[in-house]
Amino acid sequence: MKLYDCEPAPSPRRVRIFAAEKGLEIPTEQVNLRDGEQFSENFRAINPRCTVPVLETNEGNLITEVMAICIYLEELYPQPALLGEDAESKAMVAMWNNIAETDGLWAMAEAFRNSTPMFKDHALPGPETYPQLPELAARGRSRVELFLDRIDRRLEQVEYLAGDAYSVADITLLVIVDFTGWIKLDATAKRPALARWYEGVSARDSASA
Amino acid sequence: MKLYDCEPAPSPRRVRIFAAEKGLEIPTEQVNLRDGEQFSENFRAINPRCTVPVLETNEGNLITEVMAICIYLEELYPQPALLGEDAESKAMVAMWNNIAETDGLWAMAEAFRNSTPMFKDHALPGPETYPQLPELAARGRSRVELFLDRIDRRLEQVEYLAGDAYSVADITLLVIVDFTGWIKLDATAKRPALARWYEGVSARDSASA
Repeated sequence: MKLYDCEPAPSPRRVRIFAAEKGLEIPTEQVNLRDGEQFSENFRAINPRCTVPVLETNEGNLITEVMAICIYLEELYPQPALLGEDAESKAMVAMWNNIAETDGLWAMAEAFRNSTPMFKDHALPGPETYPQLPELAARGRSRVELFLDRIDRRLEQVEYLAGDAYSVADITLLVIVDFTGWIKLDATAKRPALARWYEGVSARDSASA
Repeated sequence: MKLYDCEPAPSPRRVRIFAAEKGLEIPTEQVNLRDGEQFSENFRAINPRCTVPVLETNEGNLITEVMAICIYLEELYPQPALLGEDAESKAMVAMWNNIAETDGLWAMAEAFRNSTPMFKDHALPGPETYPQLPELAARGRSRVELFLDRIDRRLEQVEYLAGDAYSVADITLLVIVDFTGWIKLDATAKRPALARWYEGVSARDSASA
């Protein structure tokens, strides 16, 4: 197995934390997104959509998409379960993870990619060019704030995002919270339940992955 | 079990087709999105994010998010498998389904919601207001065309989107192709592999769900 990775980027970090929670050490190959290595001919042959992470399996298949990689690893290494243990908990994990992606991670990306010089003409991931729109930078930021407010209320009720057990939904949320620093937004300052949760998940060994 | 549904809308149709493939008949309650019923106090108590589908489980839990509902149903009714049968096929199904969502379904929604009078000030799903942006209507349309081109090339190689077996990724793609009519785009006209695939999946009983 090999993980095409980019250490500073949020999406591949989700997979690294997921693997670390399972005690896996997957060899990585760094793809330098800052230098545009994802657009090279070499990398396009690996993933024509020019994104990381990509997992090359032992059989030589290439899996793009964070959750597809997590599902693969959970099948091969079921313990500790990070996608839920029964129908109800699997549904709750998938639901909260999807909410975190849609309202949190993609909103963060909207704010960041539409306001950062490095992403000029690359407001969306992938090989095509899309101009930055200042309206989307503002919209993304406001969506992130609303998302964090809602998650703070959720974490007043439950220990972890999807309920009683740590799961991939917490990994997604951790990456979002750390990512908010990139748009100079303090996620936890006025959100005590989120701050309590953040302290806990950041203290896990996997958080440094 | 009960499905909060809206018959004309693409997202709840994904769940209806998924259930039909498994031979399930889940009672539905219609939520009239055209009249804004999703913003009513009653429905906000069911889903504060004001989207359908929502599945109420036999235990009384509420599952929002299409894929969370599909995972729940697959756990309870494993056959026929629509999310893959082993680690590799589960990963391929999740990957292609996610690509179809990201590059196809959300791009369609971007095109449609930013150009349709009904969605004035609701360019994104949910209770918050976001103005329509003509740039996003054009961007969404162009992204859909690129996505369909890529999928046509993929379907030259494989029978179904994720490989040899019909899966939830095909359900997502079917809903996208039917949805393209709403922005007056002919998905299959110049894409013979996609047209071949479309003829097959549209002929299944579940397609009328």
